[in-house]
Amino acid sequence: MEKGRIEAFSDGVFAVAITLLVLDLKVPVRGNGSVARQVGNQWPAFAAYLTSFLVIGIIWVNHHTLMAKLARVDRSLLFINLLLLLTVVFIPFPTAVVAEYLRHGGWDAKVAVAFYSAAMEAMSLAFSAVYLWAGRHHELLHESVDVEGHQSAFRQFALGAIAYLLLIALSFLSAQAALAGHFALGVFYMFAAPHQ
Amino acid sequence: MEKGRIEAFSDGVFAVAITLLVLDLKVPVRGNGSVARQVGNQWPAFAAYLTSFLVIGIIWVNHHTLMAKLARVDRSLLFINLLLLLTVVFIPFPTAVVAEYLRHGGWDAKVAVAFYSAAMEAMSLAFSAVYLWAGRHHELLHESVDVEGHQSAFRQFALGAIAYLLLIALSFLSAQAALAGHFALGVFYMFAAPHQ
Amino acid sequence: MEKGRIEAFSDGVFAVAITLLVLDLKVPVRGNGSVARQVGNQWPAFAAYLTSFLVIGIIWVNHHTLMAKLARVDRSLLFINLLLLLTVVFIPFPTAVVAEYLRHGGWDAKVAVAFYSAAMEAMSLAFSAVYLWAGRHHELLHESVDVEGHQSAFRQFALGAIAYLLLIALSFLSAQAALAGHFALGVFYMFAAPHQ
Amino acid sequence: MEKGRIEAFSDGVFAVAITLLVLDLKVPVRGNGSVARQVGNQWPAFAAYLTSFLVIGIIWVNHHTLMAKLARVDRSLLFINLLLLLTVVFIPFPTAVVAEYLRHGGWDAKVAVAFYSAAMEAMSLAFSAVYLWAGRHHELLHESVDVEGHQSAFRQFALGAIAYLLLIALSFLSAQAALAGHFALGVFYMFAAPHQ
Repeated sequence: MEKGRIEAFSDGVFAVAITLLVLDLKVPVRGNGSVARQVGNQWPAFAAYLTSFLVIGIIWVNHHTLMAKLARVDRSLLFINLLLLLTVVFIPFPTAVVAEYLRHGGWDAKVAVAFYSAAMEAMSLAFSAVYLWAGRHHELLHESVDVEGHQSAFRQFALGAIAYLLLIALSFLSAQAALAGHFALGVFYMFAAPHQ
Repeated sequence: MEKGRIEAFSDGVFAVAITLLVLDLKVPVRGNGSVARQVGNQWPAFAAYLTSFLVIGIIWVNHHTLMAKLARVDRSLLFINLLLLLTVVFIPFPTAVVAEYLRHGGWDAKVAVAFYSAAMEAMSLAFSAVYLWAGRHHELLHESVDVEGHQSAFRQFALGAIAYLLLIALSFLSAQAALAGHFALGVFYMFAAPHQ
Repeated sequence: MEKGRIEAFSDGVFAVAITLLVLDLKVPVRGNGSVARQVGNQWPAFAAYLTSFLVIGIIWVNHHTLMAKLARVDRSLLFINLLLLLTVVFIPFPTAVVAEYLRHGGWDAKVAVAFYSAAMEAMSLAFSAVYLWAGRHHELLHESVDVEGHQSAFRQFALGAIAYLLLIALSFLSAQAALAGHFALGVFYMFAAPHQ
Repeated sequence: MEKGRIEAFSDGVFAVAITLLVLDLKVPVRGNGSVARQVGNQWPAFAAYLTSFLVIGIIWVNHHTLMAKLARVDRSLLFINLLLLLTVVFIPFPTAVVAEYLRHGGWDAKVAVAFYSAAMEAMSLAFSAVYLWAGRHHELLHESVDVEGHQSAFRQFALGAIAYLLLIALSFLSAQAALAGHFALGVFYMFAAPHQ
């Protein structure tokens, strides 16, 4: 089974999901205070938007890298990839929840960011599953792929799943710190993610 | 007529439709009860979201499989494929109707799931039509395609159309059971759908 | 300049525009009458949805046919094609206007359908412009393309522009008849549009 | 690293962003004055829609031109390109802000257009960064690319960044003139943008 369409479909889903994030920003309404204040008061929405954009962007880059290593795709991988896309497509929802609750703090802000972190955890696990499946089925990989390197890259992604668990816990201590942690983790992966 | 663009366009439509499903989830609003309760109360929306995602995902995989068997595409197939896409694009609407009505039960919940089932029936029939057209026009198929296998696959999809009819009927007995039936049917097709 | 990306981008825009149409359907709300009645009362929205889907679908098929005839694309054609996409992307808006006003009849329903017809006229003119530009610049066409056939196809599209003018006029006599006319014109083009 | 998927993903993002602009147009509602007046009163929304469509369209054409010059893509370019896409995806938001505030004039209209101009400035800078990176890493360019021409094209884009700064300032003098300036700048780039 050729991998062209799985890339095309995944790219389409990533592209739509990353663009729908903008719908989480609420357009100021006349008679509701000055534009500047209304936009400014939305800083949690912007922070969440930026963080989710970064995360989806990185997942897309890593998906790109992984697909380049595959010579072919089997039916199981199609469905594990769909599971990953399910978690990607979901991201605009917890992002909107964070945007709604972060500014006012309190318990609900913590629950909102914990929910966001759990969504990221799910995505991280789904991505690891795609990676794991490809690593366990060498016949799917290009011959030139270094299997050891693939497995060390997998371990790095598995660490991400642990980092997201810690961010779920951190959410209950400080919602803002946890969101900042998501952004920092994104920046870290941007520079440190496996090039293999 | 080359089939590259029909794949690209279909992939785009599938990708957008599957991503728009997330817009059916309602973002909790402050002052309306705790986040956790508001999210929890939306379980029918999540169930419908998950089911529709699974169904569109499977249709995409099967579309992928069917297209791989085609050597070329005629104008009629373009329009039958458009009919299929019409039914795919429509899915977020009945999904939203189920999300709105399922939790409160009663007659409206049953009508909502019956409507959902009817939309799936339409999609199933449209998919069968694409399959049937390709099977009747052997000149469209790659030479290597086993025509017998194609026809047995077609019969399996036609069974799907009957299953959806039963789910329409089941909706009037139990809305929740019928939605669960949709999910179960999706899982069944994930494992059992024709590999041809 | 290669034509691959103009096709990919156009396919993406067509795919998103055709899928956004579903957002024009209003999800029934509990406490507002039975689901069945609320869905039934929306028949103008469904009629407009179906008609616009058909029109965008046909334009996509014809765009596909036209692009297949091109060997290359110049910068002007990129921008004329963007003009076409501008009119395609706009369609969900007049579709929503028709969905809102058609059922209650009266002057506003007529204006709504006239507005819809004007949007279709604009799209028809933009499509003709793409066709005309390609016809006037033979160096863009594949050598195998029959220039005479291209020009007769162009005349057929130009007739479409006249038909849409008539539908603008008809809107002021009967909004429903004019919308039916759009649907009928779509069906006509589905069967009769130039295969060249 | 091959450039096919960066093009496919970027095309998808451009296509979705340009299509989401239509959601900024508000569908008239019955009982709120005649359709014609409601649509007419939205002229700032239409003006902003048209301007943003033109700008995204031009950026897409220029992105297309730039990508055609690249032989390969490195990881840094992937992320700089993501930064560009972040600014493109954002555009529907300031467009909606302008649509909401422009008609009623006053200070808020000026702030709205200044915000819009700042978003364009960000996009212009991100595009320049993509250009600059490619120019500084000759190994990414096709051998046939004229490096001098590339740098003169870069200077032209850098001028755009200055023009947008002026439009930020102009917004505070006249919101409408500044929006017209955006449109005029778009038309200028349509004809004058570097063909290299």
